[in-house]
Amino acid sequence: MPKHIAAFGEIMMRLQVPGFELLSQGNLLKYSFSGTGVNVLSALSRYGHRGTLVSRLPANPIGDAATAYLRRLGIQPEHIQRGGSSIGMYFLENGFGARPSRVTYSGRPESSFNTAPPGTYPFAELADLADAVHFCGITLAMNDDVRKAMKTYAETVKQHGGLVVFDCNYRPSLWGERGYELARSHYEDMLHLADIVLMNEKDAMLILGMKPEGTSREEQLQELIPTVASRYSLSTVAGTHRSIHDDNHHSLRGYIFKAGCFAYSETLTFPVLDRVGAGDAYASGIIHGELEGFDPQHSVAFAATAGMLAHTVEGDSPLASEQEVVGVLTGAVRDILR
Amino acid sequence: MPKHIAAFGEIMMRLQVPGFELLSQGNLLKYSFSGTGVNVLSALSRYGHRGTLVSRLPANPIGDAATAYLRRLGIQPEHIQRGGSSIGMYFLENGFGARPSRVTYSGRPESSFNTAPPGTYPFAELADLADAVHFCGITLAMNDDVRKAMKTYAETVKQHGGLVVFDCNYRPSLWGERGYELARSHYEDMLHLADIVLMNEKDAMLILGMKPEGTSREEQLQELIPTVASRYSLSTVAGTHRSIHDDNHHSLRGYIFKAGCFAYSETLTFPVLDRVGAGDAYASGIIHGELEGFDPQHSVAFAATAGMLAHTVEGDSPLASEQEVVGVLTGAVRDILR
Amino acid sequence: MPKHIAAFGEIMMRLQVPGFELLSQGNLLKYSFSGTGVNVLSALSRYGHRGTLVSRLPANPIGDAATAYLRRLGIQPEHIQRGGSSIGMYFLENGFGARPSRVTYSGRPESSFNTAPPGTYPFAELADLADAVHFCGITLAMNDDVRKAMKTYAETVKQHGGLVVFDCNYRPSLWGERGYELARSHYEDMLHLADIVLMNEKDAMLILGMKPEGTSREEQLQELIPTVASRYSLSTVAGTHRSIHDDNHHSLRGYIFKAGCFAYSETLTFPVLDRVGAGDAYASGIIHGELEGFDPQHSVAFAATAGMLAHTVEGDSPLASEQEVVGVLTGAVRDILR
Amino acid sequence: MPKHIAAFGEIMMRLQVPGFELLSQGNLLKYSFSGTGVNVLSALSRYGHRGTLVSRLPANPIGDAATAYLRRLGIQPEHIQRGGSSIGMYFLENGFGARPSRVTYSGRPESSFNTAPPGTYPFAELADLADAVHFCGITLAMNDDVRKAMKTYAETVKQHGGLVVFDCNYRPSLWGERGYELARSHYEDMLHLADIVLMNEKDAMLILGMKPEGTSREEQLQELIPTVASRYSLSTVAGTHRSIHDDNHHSLRGYIFKAGCFAYSETLTFPVLDRVGAGDAYASGIIHGELEGFDPQHSVAFAATAGMLAHTVEGDSPLASEQEVVGVLTGAVRDILR
Amino acid sequence: MPKHIAAFGEIMMRLQVPGFELLSQGNLLKYSFSGTGVNVLSALSRYGHRGTLVSRLPANPIGDAATAYLRRLGIQPEHIQRGGSSIGMYFLENGFGARPSRVTYSGRPESSFNTAPPGTYPFAELADLADAVHFCGITLAMNDDVRKAMKTYAETVKQHGGLVVFDCNYRPSLWGERGYELARSHYEDMLHLADIVLMNEKDAMLILGMKPEGTSREEQLQELIPTVASRYSLSTVAGTHRSIHDDNHHSLRGYIFKAGCFAYSETLTFPVLDRVGAGDAYASGIIHGELEGFDPQHSVAFAATAGMLAHTVEGDSPLASEQEVVGVLTGAVRDILR
Amino acid sequence: MPKHIAAFGEIMMRLQVPGFELLSQGNLLKYSFSGTGVNVLSALSRYGHRGTLVSRLPANPIGDAATAYLRRLGIQPEHIQRGGSSIGMYFLENGFGARPSRVTYSGRPESSFNTAPPGTYPFAELADLADAVHFCGITLAMNDDVRKAMKTYAETVKQHGGLVVFDCNYRPSLWGERGYELARSHYEDMLHLADIVLMNEKDAMLILGMKPEGTSREEQLQELIPTVASRYSLSTVAGTHRSIHDDNHHSLRGYIFKAGCFAYSETLTFPVLDRVGAGDAYASGIIHGELEGFDPQHSVAFAATAGMLAHTVEGDSPLASEQEVVGVLTGAVRDILR
Repeated sequence: MPKHIAAFGEIMMRLQVPGFELLSQGNLLKYSFSGTGVNVLSALSRYGHRGTLVSRLPANPIGDAATAYLRRLGIQPEHIQRGGSSIGMYFLENGFGARPSRVTYSGRPESSFNTAPPGTYPFAELADLADAVHFCGITLAMNDDVRKAMKTYAETVKQHGGLVVFDCNYRPSLWGERGYELARSHYEDMLHLADIVLMNEKDAMLILGMKPEGTSREEQLQELIPTVASRYSLSTVAGTHRSIHDDNHHSLRGYIFKAGCFAYSETLTFPVLDRVGAGDAYASGIIHGELEGFDPQHSVAFAATAGMLAHTVEGDSPLASEQEVVGVLTGAVRDILR
Repeated sequence: MPKHIAAFGEIMMRLQVPGFELLSQGNLLKYSFSGTGVNVLSALSRYGHRGTLVSRLPANPIGDAATAYLRRLGIQPEHIQRGGSSIGMYFLENGFGARPSRVTYSGRPESSFNTAPPGTYPFAELADLADAVHFCGITLAMNDDVRKAMKTYAETVKQHGGLVVFDCNYRPSLWGERGYELARSHYEDMLHLADIVLMNEKDAMLILGMKPEGTSREEQLQELIPTVASRYSLSTVAGTHRSIHDDNHHSLRGYIFKAGCFAYSETLTFPVLDRVGAGDAYASGIIHGELEGFDPQHSVAFAATAGMLAHTVEGDSPLASEQEVVGVLTGAVRDILR
Repeated sequence: MPKHIAAFGEIMMRLQVPGFELLSQGNLLKYSFSGTGVNVLSALSRYGHRGTLVSRLPANPIGDAATAYLRRLGIQPEHIQRGGSSIGMYFLENGFGARPSRVTYSGRPESSFNTAPPGTYPFAELADLADAVHFCGITLAMNDDVRKAMKTYAETVKQHGGLVVFDCNYRPSLWGERGYELARSHYEDMLHLADIVLMNEKDAMLILGMKPEGTSREEQLQELIPTVASRYSLSTVAGTHRSIHDDNHHSLRGYIFKAGCFAYSETLTFPVLDRVGAGDAYASGIIHGELEGFDPQHSVAFAATAGMLAHTVEGDSPLASEQEVVGVLTGAVRDILR
Repeated sequence: MPKHIAAFGEIMMRLQVPGFELLSQGNLLKYSFSGTGVNVLSALSRYGHRGTLVSRLPANPIGDAATAYLRRLGIQPEHIQRGGSSIGMYFLENGFGARPSRVTYSGRPESSFNTAPPGTYPFAELADLADAVHFCGITLAMNDDVRKAMKTYAETVKQHGGLVVFDCNYRPSLWGERGYELARSHYEDMLHLADIVLMNEKDAMLILGMKPEGTSREEQLQELIPTVASRYSLSTVAGTHRSIHDDNHHSLRGYIFKAGCFAYSETLTFPVLDRVGAGDAYASGIIHGELEGFDPQHSVAFAATAGMLAHTVEGDSPLASEQEVVGVLTGAVRDILR
Repeated sequence: MPKHIAAFGEIMMRLQVPGFELLSQGNLLKYSFSGTGVNVLSALSRYGHRGTLVSRLPANPIGDAATAYLRRLGIQPEHIQRGGSSIGMYFLENGFGARPSRVTYSGRPESSFNTAPPGTYPFAELADLADAVHFCGITLAMNDDVRKAMKTYAETVKQHGGLVVFDCNYRPSLWGERGYELARSHYEDMLHLADIVLMNEKDAMLILGMKPEGTSREEQLQELIPTVASRYSLSTVAGTHRSIHDDNHHSLRGYIFKAGCFAYSETLTFPVLDRVGAGDAYASGIIHGELEGFDPQHSVAFAATAGMLAHTVEGDSPLASEQEVVGVLTGAVRDILR
Repeated sequence: MPKHIAAFGEIMMRLQVPGFELLSQGNLLKYSFSGTGVNVLSALSRYGHRGTLVSRLPANPIGDAATAYLRRLGIQPEHIQRGGSSIGMYFLENGFGARPSRVTYSGRPESSFNTAPPGTYPFAELADLADAVHFCGITLAMNDDVRKAMKTYAETVKQHGGLVVFDCNYRPSLWGERGYELARSHYEDMLHLADIVLMNEKDAMLILGMKPEGTSREEQLQELIPTVASRYSLSTVAGTHRSIHDDNHHSLRGYIFKAGCFAYSETLTFPVLDRVGAGDAYASGIIHGELEGFDPQHSVAFAATAGMLAHTVEGDSPLASEQEVVGVLTGAVRDILR
């Protein structure tokens, strides 16, 4: 049964140099709009749910273009506030082979979202809007006002009986030196409020400071995640292990921990067209599974396939329908669909 | 010695989303014109033959553009009738990795070709035009009028001593449920008229209802094709086995059956740029070999290489010259040609 | 106060050759989706209203792309039915100077909209959806099933007290020879149901067969429109006189007839970037004026300015906000906005 | 009745910077192939005639691309020799307003055409190929071998009773200083061989050294052209007067002198999209009129309209059909064709 | 004799929607880099001078791209400091007819240039670098640190005997409400340091608060500029009057006041391709005239023509060579340059 | 410490068909400018050195565009002479899979560089300009005048104590039949003048006619290179072994021979985006190592990594900074840089 999901987070403008040129070679940029919340809602709306973004955009033609773009993705923009003067941006130069892709952020601290004055969002009104609300660790890295808004929203949702989803999504470059120390208490606050959490053993070790006895990442995962789930009363914890191979291939294996048990997807190995945003596709698959009451084994397989497919689509936002994910999940290698 | 080959079939407009975007993401389409007959004549004109298309296009700017495109490919358009109001189209969204390419047909049943009234084509006049005429199973799937025109043309050619080439090319989506049953008698009619036939053991089993004892496709092929050749008095039967691998690679192995003997190409494995139309390149190689009196072993090697090269070119229509096919067939892996 | 407007009509795919090339020269098409209803709702949603389209699209990637495009324009697609197999298309080659633009239609009779089976639309449910519903003479030209659906919808709306807007929009090429005779009774049916009608004296003479005594179009307009308004009990009749000048300039003068009085806009003369759909912008301005209770003089000036601005935007659908229309309406010639 | 026309001349590669950038700003070039003969045959094939080009191209992928391009235009390439190593090129940067368009030639002296060894063309075989052969003063400016080939071809055609068309087309930059002196005898040779000549009073004065008494160009034309026609026994002389206005508009008035009488077109004033090659469209209109036996007044009106329309099409080569030329010639200003 | 000119000012990234689409319609942006100093140095380097920019860019790929772009324009980037984290941007949507172009600024206050810490620039070292230094009123509008740096640089140059050029360039949107009051003392500081000033009577009235008796702008100009020149001991004052016509045409008339006398250019009327940056082309023409010792009448004619030509080139930065400016200044309307 | 390096060689215009189309399919070309000297200086300027090109370009818009392009790359164009009438060009059609890339040269023999009259370059003045000068065997293949200029320049540099770098770069197609015989004495002249030489055992065998006893290329290299170094008194000899694999992968292993010892890089295997110019990147790495006094083992590893990275960038000219080369050299496979 379709649900209504809200997401709280920044909308960024993505400016990508087409093909494999560098910014210093070319003269064209392809633009689109994304963000963790955007990506999660794009995926969930393709699975039949209704998605509403809670965010802030400037009241200018860039804000208008972002809004039109979100509508095209199927996202409800009614709860996007308009104000402030700019949007956070990132420039993307595609890598090739040994030359890594390069992301250059611009103007993020001054964006409309990150400079929203207290009281911008009517969280009390929003509390009952959706069945679940999605939050992300990237938002937590911004500044105190944003963190406060985020926690307030999560608390209100929790109080009203809504589901709180939290994706840890720790980005070292955003927290700076001694970032793990700075981040810990904020992450703990969010974990206490959350029902479903996306993370893996690295987050437990680096952010929460937990010290596993095992040495392989599989051992560490099995050791730490149950502790985290128990300590923060989480109903579901899920995440992935990613390996990056030479020649543009990645491997992904998803896990879910629920009701005391782990379930794992197969390890999927695949070529990568566009890597940005693929983690959000995995998260969306897990959320969809939880909302629809999937068996954990099906959830994790669905989520991993959705994650893989998100690497095969241009842009940050997942675009595969539920039918397409299931088609790949169950199908063999196939020729042209006609 | 160059020959004159005619082909009878529909000309379609191909509308491809550039790069790897979906139709719902982009705003540009690259257009070209193709069809089985177009593809076969494009290849054969590159091998030095003269190719004339017998088809029908609307008398409007789309028909003009199609005609100009065919001329660019080196195809003679003098026997394309102009009338009706539209052209069959297909939209192509390129797949990547596990995401398959997607073809969406539009307006095919109502196309000028498929609604040509009886008497459109002066088959009596056309009977002596060419040394050989190419027909295709896709045309056979259209409707009764088209089937009747096709058979009339083939009969007239046969009566005048021309060579009839028939590519089985069964497309399940065009025949619908119980399609094999519906198709059988029409295929049998064409096989009785044909000299050279493109097919493999699947066609013998599914369309003609033959039941092999062998279980591998190689066994089935060797068992069934001689029976087909004998039953329908075919001088030559040829075809391919294709395997689709992960990560955008295919394998292709060609066979030819002639004068009671099979010859096989090596199994070629290669990356795929554009898969549509590659089967027609293989057929063209076989036809070229027959017209030029190649040794069967050379024919099948040439045809398989031509088929492989057609996967490396943008668009449906094969563009490699005879010299280029032979260059790849005989050469080692090579650096830039300069 | 924002209203909710529905529109009933076909969604077409527009395929435009970029720049000034012909279809037989180029290899790229820019695609978008439009239609009279689409254009009217695009404009009205920019004036703050909510617009819902009642139409039908194929359940394939082309239908998905059309839906995404409409959402981007701000149109609600919830009441678009999915079924049938194709979409009507038109190809546009831009003219220059003495060389006129050229539109080639393709596949319109077989489109999902024009082949919708009786009972496709739940008109009873839709009757109360909107404050006003927009219909168009182009839809009336399609076929009996479409005409019947259109009249049924208009009757139901009328019965429920909704406002019926009808744009005569007679297209000679759609009705064929003796078209005016064929069309008359259908137009009369719609005029009897309508409250607001878009037309001018040409429609009264050619479709309704009225014979004015005056000879200039101004005289004929003043003579015939009051008769039409009275005969069909129309609250408002409005329309334009267009003159086409050499060198890519048009002139437009709007009129509105309401409560027994005519009001006229100034004659606006302006360069033309994209002419298709500009008439719908004028209609939208009139509808907006009626919904908001504008003074007729303001309505007609607003509508004419909106019509002019629609010629300055790429694509069929008007994109100017109310603020932009008013800015041009009240402003002097201006330099860059910065 | 359709005729067969041959043309002798160089095929050039046109490399145009898209839009209004300079070569030092951009990174893309749009390429096509043209030349006076190409342009004339493109127009004539659109009027229903058969056109064959006699020229020379390198036997490499550039020559292949040129051949495919000519076929697309509807030109027969059978008599294009393949040899030499390069093609003449010109780079085009579009002007705007007071900034003139800029053409930069590259590699013309060394082109395959301009370095064709004596004996390249089988003129004896070609003599009976066509009803008329077109030659151009630009070819005359190349070098002695080219001039010799051109005169030999014209003589052979003349001897076989074919029609010789000569377009004076004097280009100062190709002949250099004292160019008129150098050119005179060569022009006289061609005028003695020609039946139909394209020129105006400037050519008579500057190339042929004639000294008129009149001072306006109209007076000079009326004084000199009859003398030229008589001196060289020309059946038809025709040409244009062009005026260049500010803001991208030109005026064109055509004349034809035949059987002792002048006929003139109206003075057409129009905006210019692409000026290169428009003179060849006028010449083609005159040739078409002569081949079809048009009344001189109709010929000159048709030719001037064809010349005007050629300014409205991208690329050098005229693309309007006879029906389109007549449509503009007889029609009023028109809205979109649909 | 070539001179060395420095300019102090911000480098901005220009992000333009190609063609005539809005940001909410398209998906591509064309990027380049500009700024008043960039534009002035681009023009002057085309007149044979050496131009060095004194500015600040982030040490990231965007800064690298900006530097490469400036080098391409012929500007010396050695004195551009690298630091800070972002670049000021502006988005440009092209207007058409009555729809004005729209500029949306983004991230300017936080740009590397506008957040340069005190001491960033080694002004003492730079004092003797160039014969003249160009400053601009836009820089003056930024913030106190930037204003302080600008004045310090100008003072140092003045002390070392260099020429100080100041372009008033008042932008209301940058100074906000009561901006003229805020700006006055800063403008007065710069005027006291300047030798050559670009301004007109509007600046004298609005910024300096002067009250003319005349009513036409010509009278006011003649009344106020001599007073300004005398009050601030300016050797040269120059500027333009611009009129904006309908249909994409502007008129421009330049003046120069020097040694007690006014000289005026003709009023030039011309179509506009790209209006941004054209004022800087006029300023560059005046500076060039001053550096080369042109007669004032020639200076103002050269500058006005350079200004007109800058409207005919894509991008903000003037690209015409001295030869091209003189060609247009002295020439008649011309056909293609070839 | 940054050095100043000069290079002597031709600047070519590269005209590449975008994507994977053939010249006969497409209508767009991407243009850039390159050449061995250009590529080497592009790399070295990214490692912090100053690079000056000694060459010749036509004094037309193509020459202007080339100059602007070189400046953008960071190359000093002050010593590029302007004269002659054309530039050498090459057209590039990208291969795919078994279809090799295809390069078609055009107009090289007649280029401004290759037709520079004796005395064009002021070699005496240039002798002290740079710390090292780079020469290339491609230049040696052009004609006698170019060879003479090249040797004169090298001799002058040698006499003034500058470092002479010579890259053997033998291209069979440029020397024609019996090319090795023709080339030998010219190569010997350059080897006698050189300090650092790029070559491998193939060059020693084919050009210098040396006959090794070993059979593997490793044995031959170790046998012949010390002899060459000794015979021509070379301080450093370096080069690569390349293997071309199926499916767009190459392997590269670099060597350096210095002070009697060989050092080797690892064998790097990588996918190829753009192969042209990658050899120059390797050479640049060796030159950088020599200029900076790197340990030979570090030199060869740096150079091989730089060579590999040059295959991952669009265009001929290496664009990786020293930091980027070192990053890949020392790093593991990495995800997006952000």
